[in-house]
Amino acid sequence: MNLFKQIKVCVIGLALIPMSTTTYAQITNDISHEEAFEILLAAKKNAEDSNVLVNIAVVDAGANLKAFIRMDDSFLGSIDVAIKKAKTARYFDIDTGELGELTQPGGIIYNIELSNGGLITFPGGLPIKNKDGKIIGAIGVSGGTIEQDRAIATAGAKSIVD
Amino acid sequence: MNLFKQIKVCVIGLALIPMSTTTYAQITNDISHEEAFEILLAAKKNAEDSNVLVNIAVVDAGANLKAFIRMDDSFLGSIDVAIKKAKTARYFDIDTGELGELTQPGGIIYNIELSNGGLITFPGGLPIKNKDGKIIGAIGVSGGTIEQDRAIATAGAKSIVD
Amino acid sequence: MNLFKQIKVCVIGLALIPMSTTTYAQITNDISHEEAFEILLAAKKNAEDSNVLVNIAVVDAGANLKAFIRMDDSFLGSIDVAIKKAKTARYFDIDTGELGELTQPGGIIYNIELSNGGLITFPGGLPIKNKDGKIIGAIGVSGGTIEQDRAIATAGAKSIVD
Amino acid sequence: MNLFKQIKVCVIGLALIPMSTTTYAQITNDISHEEAFEILLAAKKNAEDSNVLVNIAVVDAGANLKAFIRMDDSFLGSIDVAIKKAKTARYFDIDTGELGELTQPGGIIYNIELSNGGLITFPGGLPIKNKDGKIIGAIGVSGGTIEQDRAIATAGAKSIVD
Repeated sequence: MNLFKQIKVCVIGLALIPMSTTTYAQITNDISHEEAFEILLAAKKNAEDSNVLVNIAVVDAGANLKAFIRMDDSFLGSIDVAIKKAKTARYFDIDTGELGELTQPGGIIYNIELSNGGLITFPGGLPIKNKDGKIIGAIGVSGGTIEQDRAIATAGAKSIVD
Repeated sequence: MNLFKQIKVCVIGLALIPMSTTTYAQITNDISHEEAFEILLAAKKNAEDSNVLVNIAVVDAGANLKAFIRMDDSFLGSIDVAIKKAKTARYFDIDTGELGELTQPGGIIYNIELSNGGLITFPGGLPIKNKDGKIIGAIGVSGGTIEQDRAIATAGAKSIVD
Repeated sequence: MNLFKQIKVCVIGLALIPMSTTTYAQITNDISHEEAFEILLAAKKNAEDSNVLVNIAVVDAGANLKAFIRMDDSFLGSIDVAIKKAKTARYFDIDTGELGELTQPGGIIYNIELSNGGLITFPGGLPIKNKDGKIIGAIGVSGGTIEQDRAIATAGAKSIVD
Repeated sequence: MNLFKQIKVCVIGLALIPMSTTTYAQITNDISHEEAFEILLAAKKNAEDSNVLVNIAVVDAGANLKAFIRMDDSFLGSIDVAIKKAKTARYFDIDTGELGELTQPGGIIYNIELSNGGLITFPGGLPIKNKDGKIIGAIGVSGGTIEQDRAIATAGAKSIVD
């Protein structure tokens, strides 16, 4: 396995040589499921400490669902809201609450919520960054007040860089 | 990598310890079809007494359709509105009219209606509680004015606790 | 009210005079909510007598949901199947089981199930006729075996002509 | 008309008499998030031991998403398949593979997959039972062969009763 990995690294390394002169491929960063789990547990712990019942969703760099949990007795309607908050945060690499300021009537991107199968543009969705500050996914929290949701999402997102 | 995994397993293991002392299963309450029928008939009677033509939907604790009736000559468009009102009321355990106050432009959860396949956030949807005050489902009424819809929904929801 | 109704009848009567010579309007027959309720109760009683747990849906002449009930502990997935059976039966004025014989691979209307938001083409959906033999709606039953579903649907549909 | 209504009220009234002697509320069992987590971890461990990359979804008694994880490098298309397998298993309280035997061309419920927003009817979805044998949710696994998916789902579902 380790040998295989080493060979793999070599192969990728060799493959990168022509890349450095052309622009044919991208090296990207993506959240691992271990990190997604860690974030989920950290957010859940923060919610429990605050006596808030929430749904927590983590999406990867491609805005695809990576991990999810619904706490007992949290709102049924928050399943979809939490997932949409996470997706929205990654779709536009932004705190969903900040996005919501731009989507109000008269706002510069009024009603963008109608795109992408439905966005959620109030607080509770946040990009997840790695230690280098690169966005590798996003977290969405729903079930408490918008302030609670944002605080829980923040606790989750921060857990992997602390 | 292996060490990291071991640590992770430990962390998760520790996290599971308090879990093992908490209750492992949930006992929940759900509306019966007899209750749903009784609520439907009570709401319908109230609508007839008020000369209002409505659609009435009852969903269970899981927000799934349990019973429905459309009165003759009521709006065709109210079929979906009544069902969505009932689902919305259970999704967030709230009077849909109260929810609507928070979803207006500038409101704290503006445009949440775009989640869950479409919510309805004006009056006419109400949680249904049993005699112990536990939410066991929800009712949605559509076809009259919003005041009439709410009054009919209230008459329905109250019928099983009177 | 009565006077109003009489006037209304006159107005409609007068309006019908030119109709009888031209073909500008149709007089149609539609199921009433009392009939829909009666059918629902008759089907439910038949299901209870047979110890089968089902979902029962009745649609009107326009294939719109008119009445519905889900018996306790019946399949969650049968909510949609029952409604789709009723709609399918009215969409094509046919026993859904007969339709299914034509939709198999090699059949003359193979995969028609993909139209109309999804059809169900196995037994359990039946047109509802009035005493004159006119189709005024349809019933869909799901939860038992296909034979049980069809028998319960038949009992429901027949109840208003017996 | 009035007489008709009175008779109808009597009929409904009589129908309600047996209802008043039956139980008025349902006590149901639902999976807890601790159990859902435990199942997820047990299924993931089984997948890792078998060197299979999968998506794992757990739904509650109401077929609503309770917990989810996507292993690194598993198929993107398996997110939805895993969730749909879990929902399908709970919608009809059945091993999805067994359901698939009935939905083939010529099968008794051919093309039922078109209901409920899309079902998945090949192996990998299983009901989750508590120690009393009551169904409290379901698990769906996707990413390996159907045999591997079923084995992983089984390992997950069994973990809370062992």
